[in-house]
Amino acid sequence: MTSSLTRASTAPVRAVDLIRKKRDQVELSREEITALVQGYTLGEIPDYQAAAWLMAAVIRGLTRAETAALTDAMLRSGEVLDLSNFSAPKVDKHSTGGVGDKTSLVLAPVAAAGGLIVPMISGRGLGHTGGTLDKLESIPGFNVNLSVADFRRVLAACGCCMIGQTAEIAPADRKLYALRDVTGTVESPYLICASIMSKKLAEGIDALVLDVKTGSGAFMKKEEEAVFLAELMVETGQRMGKKMVALITDMDQPLGRHVGNSLEVVEVLEVLGGRGPDDLRDLCLELSGWMFHLGGAASSVGQGKRMAEQLIASGKALAKFRQMVELQGGDPRAVDDPARLPRARHTLEVPAQRSGYVNAIECEAVGTACVVLGGGREKKEESVDPAVGMVFHKKIGDMVQAGESLCALHYNCEARMQRARSLLEKSYGIVDVPPTQKRPMVHRVIGEEH
Amino acid sequence: MTSSLTRASTAPVRAVDLIRKKRDQVELSREEITALVQGYTLGEIPDYQAAAWLMAAVIRGLTRAETAALTDAMLRSGEVLDLSNFSAPKVDKHSTGGVGDKTSLVLAPVAAAGGLIVPMISGRGLGHTGGTLDKLESIPGFNVNLSVADFRRVLAACGCCMIGQTAEIAPADRKLYALRDVTGTVESPYLICASIMSKKLAEGIDALVLDVKTGSGAFMKKEEEAVFLAELMVETGQRMGKKMVALITDMDQPLGRHVGNSLEVVEVLEVLGGRGPDDLRDLCLELSGWMFHLGGAASSVGQGKRMAEQLIASGKALAKFRQMVELQGGDPRAVDDPARLPRARHTLEVPAQRSGYVNAIECEAVGTACVVLGGGREKKEESVDPAVGMVFHKKIGDMVQAGESLCALHYNCEARMQRARSLLEKSYGIVDVPPTQKRPMVHRVIGEEH
Repeated sequence: MTSSLTRASTAPVRAVDLIRKKRDQVELSREEITALVQGYTLGEIPDYQAAAWLMAAVIRGLTRAETAALTDAMLRSGEVLDLSNFSAPKVDKHSTGGVGDKTSLVLAPVAAAGGLIVPMISGRGLGHTGGTLDKLESIPGFNVNLSVADFRRVLAACGCCMIGQTAEIAPADRKLYALRDVTGTVESPYLICASIMSKKLAEGIDALVLDVKTGSGAFMKKEEEAVFLAELMVETGQRMGKKMVALITDMDQPLGRHVGNSLEVVEVLEVLGGRGPDDLRDLCLELSGWMFHLGGAASSVGQGKRMAEQLIASGKALAKFRQMVELQGGDPRAVDDPARLPRARHTLEVPAQRSGYVNAIECEAVGTACVVLGGGREKKEESVDPAVGMVFHKKIGDMVQAGESLCALHYNCEARMQRARSLLEKSYGIVDVPPTQKRPMVHRVIGEEH
Repeated sequence: MTSSLTRASTAPVRAVDLIRKKRDQVELSREEITALVQGYTLGEIPDYQAAAWLMAAVIRGLTRAETAALTDAMLRSGEVLDLSNFSAPKVDKHSTGGVGDKTSLVLAPVAAAGGLIVPMISGRGLGHTGGTLDKLESIPGFNVNLSVADFRRVLAACGCCMIGQTAEIAPADRKLYALRDVTGTVESPYLICASIMSKKLAEGIDALVLDVKTGSGAFMKKEEEAVFLAELMVETGQRMGKKMVALITDMDQPLGRHVGNSLEVVEVLEVLGGRGPDDLRDLCLELSGWMFHLGGAASSVGQGKRMAEQLIASGKALAKFRQMVELQGGDPRAVDDPARLPRARHTLEVPAQRSGYVNAIECEAVGTACVVLGGGREKKEESVDPAVGMVFHKKIGDMVQAGESLCALHYNCEARMQRARSLLEKSYGIVDVPPTQKRPMVHRVIGEEH
């Protein structure tokens, strides 16, 4: 298909005319959008024209057809993995990012243990949200920078593999994202959808489960924004022939009890070991259930969840995780003995200032506290300290006595600890009466029928 | 004032934040707009950020305060002429451009003959509209590229001087306009207003008469668009302490009978000689009347018009034009004997295909025909043939017999003539019944009371 599309350099279509169309709310054709993306990726269309078009797209929005065409053109700007030699269904999950969200590390081995192929390409933490790659790299030796050939080998050997973005995947997205970052054109559901979906669909998957976060720790603070983005991504994926579902899930407090790279791996091992906090475990089972159902391995989500429970209870999921760690160069002994994971030199308990009930944990502040400790980054180039983070003892709804510990800070630097502590103290809301209603973990399901 | 404004390089304000504000419909402060314009002019803000901001401004619009701040910042990006040593009122006229619009060449000498100072900085023809500088340069020897010092000397000697844009005047506009041209951000009344007004106010004038064209030969085809732009420019000028008026005038057929550079100078000499076509003469008197009134030389527009009539009848206006031509290096004998102006080698009469009444002359097509003949340009770099053009015998409302000549083409190239002829034939509308209503020359007056 790509070869038959009009190239910007040879086409009679001029970039300025495509900019004017979007400005004037005229729908662009698939060919026009392809010409724009190809022209920009090849350097034939300059940054200033792309920036003007992006701003028009942010303000005017894109139609569903334009969004799909943009996603497709970005996807085809680079390599699309061909995993057709794997007969098992290829299924992935993508989260829009949150605080303490370590579900990917549970889901990949659970789904692979259940017979699915999970070719997971993930990102790093940026701003207040953590990143899957940073968490994995806290396991000594774990290599997320595999070649496509090695990625295939690990997939063939154990069914799941977790790596970082490669230069070959969706180069248009990388170039466009850098431009969006400096031109005020990040905040558009249409462009966010195309960015996420172009990368995910380049994995060569059959089905995708989306975990769209909403709440104080999510990018989409308002539920209606999360729903809008979820619907857009589901429809875009479906237009491209993929099985899709999106779960709108709660991110109004940290997910689980651990925040920080190696601390989150510890909690992943707890869940894979059949333990771990209820909220994290429940969400992992829910998402696994959907992966099995969309992948055709379970006739219903409920059956998929039961499969996941059994794979955890039998130890097969943990064994799969251990196998993946070993295949990707990680030290498997860290899976058996989490004490081998990096640990911060100091811990500090943060006591409650008053008695009452926790009714809020301002989740973006928690994420920022983790960045302050050194566990995340503000800029792409920064490195992270794998050992630092927080362990939460009290979450929303819990009763607390004045002086009792709310959470423990794991830190390596006194000054950073003080700033993080201050952020954490302010992030907790404590009131006299217990909150009447608990926010459900899954707010809504968008896409496939249950 | 400029020195106290925040510079983009040192200010805590980041370009991306100003882009986001405009995108999100938050009004920018005067300081923020100044930082943007200064930063861009100095090369500290790159093209792609300026392009994103411009697109946001085109779609979201600017408030009146933002428009004035943008105009002011662009004005102050370069030199502002200080003409305070001239005690007489300094008044100029600006037209948004049309076909056959040669009023500037009449108005400058009329107004100067009446005691005003007219420091007129004009542009060249682009697209279907002609340019004052190209018309002046058809007078042998006429130099429009004077230094500011020579500009002052001519003004002191004869009261009017007509030159082109200098590098010192509003460099921000030149840079922004080049970017707008390739990013689909030309068509915005706010940006058009700031571009025009920044250049005109850099002339150091006290009052400005705007001639905002509407109709098939104007940039603003719809009257409401012309009115909107006119109101914007009048208010922007008034905010900056200038006396302002805008006349919405008809450009639904060529103004006068001559189109083409030296042909238009011939018609200017007719009007200054007390002859010439009624529509052109009437508009020149109307605009002169306003210049005299705003400049304080006449107590009413009517009195100003009578002054202009007398200055023409007495030969003083023509003498002033001759003086200016001579002071700017032109051959004054061409003023006395128009046969000394460049003349095309060939002429061709274009006959009517049918009998009836002219009810339309599609005016943009006429302008394009002139470009096709070589009398205008599509791109800035192109040179023009001063001799070619058209003389219209039949205008809207005129009765015509089949075979009778509608207009004469003056040409130097057979192939170009054929294309121009075809355009002209199509531009004429001829019907059986005479048009019932004649469009008035002045549709509306915006600004000062009559």
